[in-house]
Amino acid sequence: MDEFALIARHFTRAPRAGDVVLGIGDDAAILAPAPGAEWLATVDMMVEGRHFLAGADPRHLGHKLMAVNLSDIAAMGGRPRFALLAVALPADDEAWLTAFSHGLFALAEAHGVDVVGGDTTRGPRNVCLTLLGDAPAGTALRRAGAQAGDDVYVSGTLGDAMLALAAIEGRTALAAPVLASLRARLDAPTPRVALGQALRGVASAAIDISDGLTGDLGHLLERSGVGAVVELASLPRCAALDAKLRSAERDAALECLLAGGDDYELCFTAAASRRDAVGAASRTGGVAVTRIGRVVAGNALLVHDEDGKPLAPLPRGFDHFRAGDGRSGALR
Amino acid sequence: MDEFALIARHFTRAPRAGDVVLGIGDDAAILAPAPGAEWLATVDMMVEGRHFLAGADPRHLGHKLMAVNLSDIAAMGGRPRFALLAVALPADDEAWLTAFSHGLFALAEAHGVDVVGGDTTRGPRNVCLTLLGDAPAGTALRRAGAQAGDDVYVSGTLGDAMLALAAIEGRTALAAPVLASLRARLDAPTPRVALGQALRGVASAAIDISDGLTGDLGHLLERSGVGAVVELASLPRCAALDAKLRSAERDAALECLLAGGDDYELCFTAAASRRDAVGAASRTGGVAVTRIGRVVAGNALLVHDEDGKPLAPLPRGFDHFRAGDGRSGALR
Repeated sequence: MDEFALIARHFTRAPRAGDVVLGIGDDAAILAPAPGAEWLATVDMMVEGRHFLAGADPRHLGHKLMAVNLSDIAAMGGRPRFALLAVALPADDEAWLTAFSHGLFALAEAHGVDVVGGDTTRGPRNVCLTLLGDAPAGTALRRAGAQAGDDVYVSGTLGDAMLALAAIEGRTALAAPVLASLRARLDAPTPRVALGQALRGVASAAIDISDGLTGDLGHLLERSGVGAVVELASLPRCAALDAKLRSAERDAALECLLAGGDDYELCFTAAASRRDAVGAASRTGGVAVTRIGRVVAGNALLVHDEDGKPLAPLPRGFDHFRAGDGRSGALR
Repeated sequence: MDEFALIARHFTRAPRAGDVVLGIGDDAAILAPAPGAEWLATVDMMVEGRHFLAGADPRHLGHKLMAVNLSDIAAMGGRPRFALLAVALPADDEAWLTAFSHGLFALAEAHGVDVVGGDTTRGPRNVCLTLLGDAPAGTALRRAGAQAGDDVYVSGTLGDAMLALAAIEGRTALAAPVLASLRARLDAPTPRVALGQALRGVASAAIDISDGLTGDLGHLLERSGVGAVVELASLPRCAALDAKLRSAERDAALECLLAGGDDYELCFTAAASRRDAVGAASRTGGVAVTRIGRVVAGNALLVHDEDGKPLAPLPRGFDHFRAGDGRSGALR
């Protein structure tokens, strides 16, 4: 099968939006920008053996590739619009490609995203998605902008994906129904797109949590030139992780909570005067939002434990759990 | 070295254009569209062992990755604007990344392209570039639009890249200075960006020649719902290829000329009444343009040999020379 037949079969849908002037099938797509909008652009590449295992369910992988990019647009407060997909496969594998594209398109369509460009080639399995979004000019959320005195928030619960991975790999035990529910968080994360858009004009800064709370909040603080104090007791977590925090597995549970990646929740800051507006955004976004701390002057990120004492050392990013587990997104 | 340090070191340049509201370093870039413009978007992925050899000069590879995408925007008559780059590398390799980024950025800067997004990961070597361009609304060139009676043109010369490859692989002989000059066409092709823009309002349809004249012109004709007659004697070729056409190597030379990929010239059609305008576009674009045939009713592509007889069978795309040579861009 040649490239054009593959693209036509799997990646071409009739674009629903009048803003796709010309979709897949020419040298480039032609897109009409919305009046008064700025464009948002992000790219993520996922590699077999690094971001996913060789036997990974291709439907989940398609979902996840779209989800991680949607999460980046969500963290900017953007409306996702157009995607360009490049796929390398070791051999013709229609069954794989069909399942992958179903997972990808289901989530794309749920968010009004048109896939307008594609490239397929033979090679070690690698999937790469560029996502374009938009936002009214001047309204996109950035990592910079947090000010001392602002509240710090996260959406959803933290550590679910990493806890699921630990259970799958036999490093901890979970009841079967709990694992099933957490596994869905790992395999098919929900990008917080509606929340991000609702936070335009409300949040002072935002980032998505792909590498863990302390690492990603750290990026936000660095860009904003401020520090923060976070209360461990306030961090939203599932019941299973909460129980492990109070058990002999506390250290690993802390790492899930503070440094667990792949949750794709939003972390953001907002002035204390905007608490009602944050609550309204949470309702609009259809996801719980929890106030976990406050922005302070300086450049330190402190996490207070249940007794109000600073945790040290602080787990940051994937470095501990991820070393050698083949899932890290970075060159390290 | 972590991902962020890598990106900062190699892929961040101060954007020169006021239209990059926010470049690399946040969850997504923020871009301001030009008033009255439509956007063009294309993506190309290149894989080690498939599109380039393991020992390929990374500077050439960076150039070529940018060039093949620029060529797609050129074929739409677009102005290239913004790029997003994803790179998988088997190990930290700063020397490789430095040379690669130098090649890529040199060509990007020559065309006013800002690299606004990046992702780096560990994995089998794979480079993927998404390029965004723009054009005044309604002016982009498409593959569809050629009409019976139109002239058919190509820019530059055809078959140079494939002839160089054949010589490198020992399948034909070339004098050293000739090989050096043709090898530059293979390693560091020149995308015809200025020509493409000059052809807006002049060409009735356009495509870039990445897979060979007959294959790519065939795509244009299919999209336009027409056929064409091309005169072999008119096809622009270098002196070395011309000599081989008159030698015992004629069949291989024909294949270079008609089905040689990687030239990244433009093939386009224009009404016979626009010949002066095509000449002016050629001067503006800084590249020779040759009239090679005419568009006809029907759906057949005929190539007349020097005696006016149809060549049959017609080499199409890479299928012959490329099978097994590890350079094809398609899953076949």
